[in-house]
Parts: sequence; structure tokens; C-alpha cells
Amino acid sequence: MMSPGSGISLDPWFDNYAARAAGLNASEVRALFAVASRPEVVSLAGGMPYVAALPFDKVRSSVDTVLAENGPAALQYGSGQGLPTLREHIRTIMAEEGIRAGVDDIVVTTGSQQGLDLVTKLFIDPGDAILAESPSYVGAMGVFRSYQARVEHIDMDEHGMIPAALTDRIEELKAAGVPIKFLYLIPNFQNPAGVTLSASRRVEILDIAQAHGILVVEDNPYGLLWFDSPPPQALRSVDEAGVIYLGSFSKTFAPGLRVGWVVAPHGIREKLVLASEAAILSPSSFAQMILAEYFSSHDWKRQIDTFRGIYRERRDAMSAALATYLPDVTHTSPAGGFYLWLTLPEGLDSKEMLPRAITELVAYTPGTAFFANGEGQRNIRLAFCYPDADFITEGIRRLARVITAERELVDTFGPATSEIPLAANLESPPPEVV
Amino acid sequence: MMSPGSGISLDPWFDNYAARAAGLNASEVRALFAVASRPEVVSLAGGMPYVAALPFDKVRSSVDTVLAENGPAALQYGSGQGLPTLREHIRTIMAEEGIRAGVDDIVVTTGSQQGLDLVTKLFIDPGDAILAESPSYVGAMGVFRSYQARVEHIDMDEHGMIPAALTDRIEELKAAGVPIKFLYLIPNFQNPAGVTLSASRRVEILDIAQAHGILVVEDNPYGLLWFDSPPPQALRSVDEAGVIYLGSFSKTFAPGLRVGWVVAPHGIREKLVLASEAAILSPSSFAQMILAEYFSSHDWKRQIDTFRGIYRERRDAMSAALATYLPDVTHTSPAGGFYLWLTLPEGLDSKEMLPRAITELVAYTPGTAFFANGEGQRNIRLAFCYPDADFITEGIRRLARVITAERELVDTFGPATSEIPLAANLESPPPEVV
Repeated sequence: MMSPGSGISLDPWFDNYAARAAGLNASEVRALFAVASRPEVVSLAGGMPYVAALPFDKVRSSVDTVLAENGPAALQYGSGQGLPTLREHIRTIMAEEGIRAGVDDIVVTTGSQQGLDLVTKLFIDPGDAILAESPSYVGAMGVFRSYQARVEHIDMDEHGMIPAALTDRIEELKAAGVPIKFLYLIPNFQNPAGVTLSASRRVEILDIAQAHGILVVEDNPYGLLWFDSPPPQALRSVDEAGVIYLGSFSKTFAPGLRVGWVVAPHGIREKLVLASEAAILSPSSFAQMILAEYFSSHDWKRQIDTFRGIYRERRDAMSAALATYLPDVTHTSPAGGFYLWLTLPEGLDSKEMLPRAITELVAYTPGTAFFANGEGQRNIRLAFCYPDADFITEGIRRLARVITAERELVDTFGPATSEIPLAANLESPPPEVV
Repeated sequence: MMSPGSGISLDPWFDNYAARAAGLNASEVRALFAVASRPEVVSLAGGMPYVAALPFDKVRSSVDTVLAENGPAALQYGSGQGLPTLREHIRTIMAEEGIRAGVDDIVVTTGSQQGLDLVTKLFIDPGDAILAESPSYVGAMGVFRSYQARVEHIDMDEHGMIPAALTDRIEELKAAGVPIKFLYLIPNFQNPAGVTLSASRRVEILDIAQAHGILVVEDNPYGLLWFDSPPPQALRSVDEAGVIYLGSFSKTFAPGLRVGWVVAPHGIREKLVLASEAAILSPSSFAQMILAEYFSSHDWKRQIDTFRGIYRERRDAMSAALATYLPDVTHTSPAGGFYLWLTLPEGLDSKEMLPRAITELVAYTPGTAFFANGEGQRNIRLAFCYPDADFITEGIRRLARVITAERELVDTFGPATSEIPLAANLESPPPEVV
């Protein structure tokens, strides 16, 4: 008879990996998400934009124009910093949020995720601290871990990161001699919490960062997707010397082209270009030219209005369904973006509950994915971007059934003890969780 | 009056960078390459494939099919490992070189450069050794430096890396206690040397690597671009447990889509997917679908034949021009690929000579770009892939004029003392040098 482990093929190169590879472990919710992608499951898990609302005829005509007018250049290597004409369009887009930048300040990347990867690679030695919201973007947790950063979460409330909590943590870390390399923030319609940093706190936080000589990394994929009124102006619009800004076409156009950008102070920008060339040589010329053509020939602002309308309606559907089916569960009220953050009643564990939710044909992302320290067990991120209003309503109805059953169990038997050790929360994001 | 340095704006974040950022410095030949891209200059520098020979009508119809049949999926996020249908095509392409691989063994990347970046990130702690050919690919030198690897060059001759030299170096490094993480090789039509590793040496080198427990990274962008007969079979086709294979669509299709792949032993493959998700979330769905459609609907083997014919003709033109204009300068005789490696007469310095060459309207890549240790001063890489035969002939004629003038100077005044310190050779590649 075979022993239990004998069917597992061990990795003969296990002892050869770099220290940083230890942080790369498959999430145990990964397999669940594969199940969750089946059509009968209402997935409120993934942050996939609703690209079906794009004007496909315009996309096709943009592609045709690029191939007809610029085919060989579109299929060739490009410059490491990115196509100047696309960088011009990026300037115009950023001007919508009050950011002034020269084309020379912009580096085009393979999605803003690559921008974050390059910034982290440039600044983080093992053990260096990054300050981040509590909770923060799961993909950022993955990058930071891959460079062995020490992530320090700073408390938030409904107005975003709390300045006093930021100051306290900076002072603690400085007293302990821990180098703080940057403050990572998603000020608008935060992923996952769905809250927006208030205007007054933006000023306060920039003041704190400046006073302590801490670089700010502002990640803003959702800023233009406001529902009622625009969010306060970007941090980068106030402080050009101390803020690195990450932008993305994934939410205002489409993620399938993998194009984002970084705006950085001059010295950093130079190093980012060199780091990007080492990593990928150059971003896709073809993707950049299609975007440049689309943004020059199409009414993209109106398209963003269309997206706003769709996501607003879905946010409304989710809020209404939560009020109907889960009236006593607390959650945030996002004024834009894709996500809403839910806090379960005491005694419930969102990761424990996920397999049961999937059995009931609804999926979500457990809160622990958004923390570097195992917190978030009572939290759930719900995404309202992809399913339509009816599916969202049905999804929340199913979720309510799961939560109610779980509460009854807890009331009868007491809270479940998680079999998942804390360290398992330090996992990589499944690709479905963006 | 202003002091000499006062016009330079210093980087206020200089003290905050990670240790690895010290390797990211702009090349001083970068500015020269900007000049070299002017149309009156015959550039024998960049390794840009001749994409104008692609069937643009087929490319356009592939794109149209993707958008018509799969538009929303093409514009959406994809899986971190890459599209299964494209991985099926990759299997078929690799079978041409004797490689058997399951779709599950393949990871799609943003060009094979990203594959090399991820492999290096997974394995290299600062100071770990990588063994590489002498000379080796400039872009690999850039990645390796960005993770603070110690690159050890192993001597080559016209049959590729010399096995005895490899054994000697491994033993020296082991005796010195330096961890050797992998052996990086470009066995076919090597960049920059243009030589091919012989069949018998492939076996010998794999034996040596196995005996010492050293992983082999086989980079093979040019393997299908042979001129007279195919090169010996891929190392990966012989050893599946000990070889990571890097493949690319940049030379058999086009670099503008930025799609490459990695084939790796199972345990490594799993970590590569997680590392790629941390770095870019997922490769471009759009680019992958276009490639899958092109490879399923077009006679891609015939297209590769077309490319072979074009590059063979250009190689012939370069060989003939060298025989005519520089009969006593030694160079390699590539049987495929893009490059030829030239050794200047004693006393000449290829980097010193570059500004004068550009003045004469011809550009090349100085040999030092292909070494991590400052060697290569007497070498030049010439690329015959992009300009047509007449331009190549004219370029070599101009180069001969420069070399002749330089020799006369040296004969009269003795060799020039380079004003460029050795450390300046440790520079990042300009994007034009692939």
C-alpha cells in the first residue's frame, strides 16, 4: 500500500529558490474559484469590468485603422517608456482628475499591476515597510509579498485612512528602526472597502508623508467611475514631487489589452523605464496604438458615462438587496467603483463559509485576501461590476440564506474553529480576484 | 556664474531605493541610438524582426475573427497561466523542435523577456551565480543585474559553449562556496555570437549540469529561423526535469503583441504562474486570441519559410560585403537567426568607435553590451535582420571606412585610452538592442 504522501511529486528544485519565492504559494480558495466560474454560480467575487458595454464597432474600426495605417510599427518592438501619442492621451485623461503631467513624466506599463511591481522592485529591500490601508488591494498584497516587504495596515473609517493612525504607526516604525519605503493608497472607491478618502484627509495625509519624507503611491483605477459626483482631486495633483501615480485603462476601456501607466517624479521615472525594459523590453505597440486610435477617434467620455450608469444601477441593486435580505449586516456605501465591503455578525468566518456559499451557488471574496496579517475573517468583498441587477439580487438572496444558516449553527454550537492556520492567509490572489 | 552641476536636478528619493536599483543606470550609448534611428543611418544595431513580410491581410482577418466571435472575452482579464487554446498551438510549434510538453507545462508570458525575468526572480538571491555564454544576450544581462546576480561567462568557440570550461568554472565556484542557480544558454544562432551549440556538446553540457545539480535555462527565440538545415534538437527535448525552456512569438510572428512562453518542470511552473500573477495579473487575452486564431487559420510554417528566405539573403549579403570590404577582419558565420559577431583588429575599441561610425551613418552594437564584466571592447554585434541587402552592403562599406580610418589612427598614435570607466559597461540595454 502506498503511503499518503507518495503520490505527490516533490519539487527537486525546492532548495534552489530565492528567499522571496517562499511567499509564492497557491491560495486554497483558488480551486473554489474555478468552481465558482461555472455559469450557475452568481459570482460577486471577481472585479471584472463589464466590457460587453464597449462599442465593439469602434474597437474594431480602431484596430483596422492601426493595421491599415501603421501595421509594421504596431507589430514591432517599441520604446520602453511607451508610445508618445498614447502618453499624450493619458495626459488628457488625467487632466480630468486635475493632474498636470508632461508626456515625459509618464511610463506606459503592462497594466497598472506592472507599474506597482516595478515601483516595489525599485524601492523594497527585504523587511522594508510599506504602509497600506486596512484592508488593501489583494494584488498589491501579492506584489509586496513577492519582494518580501513588511506591510503595515493603517486603520480606515468611512472617510478613508485615518491620519492619526498613520502618524502613530510611522512613529512606532521609526522608533523601531524599520525603514518605511512608501505609503500605498487607493483614495477613490477603494478596493476592497469601497470608501473614498475625503478632501481634508488628502491634505492631512500628504502633510504627514511630507513631514516624514515618505513617498506616496496613489493607485487610482476607479477615479473616473463616480456615480453622483466626482471624488476629490488626486493626491498627485497637489504634490508632484512626492507622489507616484498609477493609472489604468482596464476600467475605463478594457483589461484585455493590459495597458496602464505610471506618473512619477523625474528621477524615479528614469529608473522605472530601465526596470521595465529589463522586465519586458517594451509594452505592446499594438495595444498602445489601438488605445491611442480609440481615444482620438471616439467619444470616450461618453463611454465612461455609460459605464457609470451601468455600475450605478448595479450598486443600487446590491444596496437594495442587502437592505431587503440582510438588513442587520453592516456594509459600506460606495459612491463609485466596483466594490462593497461587508462585515459579518460576530462568530462567522468568511473563508470557512465560502465552500457553503458556493454550494448555494453564490461566490464572494473572503476578507482575509485583503490583509497581509490574517485579519478580515469577518469580512467579505462583494463586487457589483459584472453580473446584472437581477443576478446581483439573486446572489444576495442566496448569500443571505448562507449567512442565516451559518448564524443558526453558531447560535447552536458556538463559532467554528478555523482549520486554516493563519499563515495560509498569506496567499497569492487567484486571478479572478482583481 | 553657475557651477557645472547646478543645472542638474538631483533625485530627492535617491536614498530610498532598494539595493537592486543600483544596477539600473542609463547606458551612455542610449543617446547615440536615438540618433541612429534617423533614416539616413544604416542601423546594423537593433534586432528588430522584419515584420513587414507578415501577411497583413491574414493578421487583420485574425483580429476581425477574434473581435466578432470572442470580443468580450478578448477584452477581459484572462488566466495567469495563459489561454489554453494558445498553449495548444505552442505545443505544436515546439514539436517542430522535438519538444514534448503538456499544455499544463506551459506558462504564457509578456514576451520571453518576462519569462526570463520571472525565472530570475524565482531563483536569484543577491550574489547567486548564473552561468552564461561569453558573450550573452544583452537583455539577459539587464535582468540578471536587476536581481543582483553574479554572472559568470563561460568561453565559447564556433561550436558553442566549451564543456571543459563549464566544468572548470563550476568547480571554481563550488570551491569558493558561491551558489550556482542556473546555466543560461541560447543554443541556436546565439545572440550575439551567431554560433550554434553542436549536438554532441548539448549532451555533454546536459550531463555536466545534471552531475552538478544545476538547472538549465534554454532561451530559443531563433531556433526555427535556420537557413540550410535545422539545428540539433532542443535541450528541453532531452531533459524535461532539468531544463526551463523560453519561447517567443517575436521572431516567428511579431514582437508587437508581446507574447512568449515558458516550459518548466512542474514545481517551477506552479511558482512561475504565481509570480506572473503578482507581476502583471494575466497576459493579454486579446494578443493571445489573435495569435491562436492566426496559428489555427494560417499556414504559419510557410510564413516561417518566407522569413528564413529573407534572413538568409541578408546574411549572405552581409557575409559577401564583409569579404569585400573587410577581408581581414574575423567574424562568425551564422547558419540562422539575426546576428554576426565581429572581432576588430588589436588596438581598436568598438564603443570608442561608435560615435565616429554614426557620423559615417552606420550603427552597430558594441561588444561590451553582451558581457557582465566589461569584456568585448574589440567586438561588434552586427544584425542582418532588418535592413535589406543593399542597405546591409552599404552599411558594411561605411563600417569598413570607419575601421580603416581607426586603424590608421592607431597605427600612427597607438591605441586610444578609453575615457569610459569599466563600470560604465555595466549598463542597461537600450530598447533598440534586443
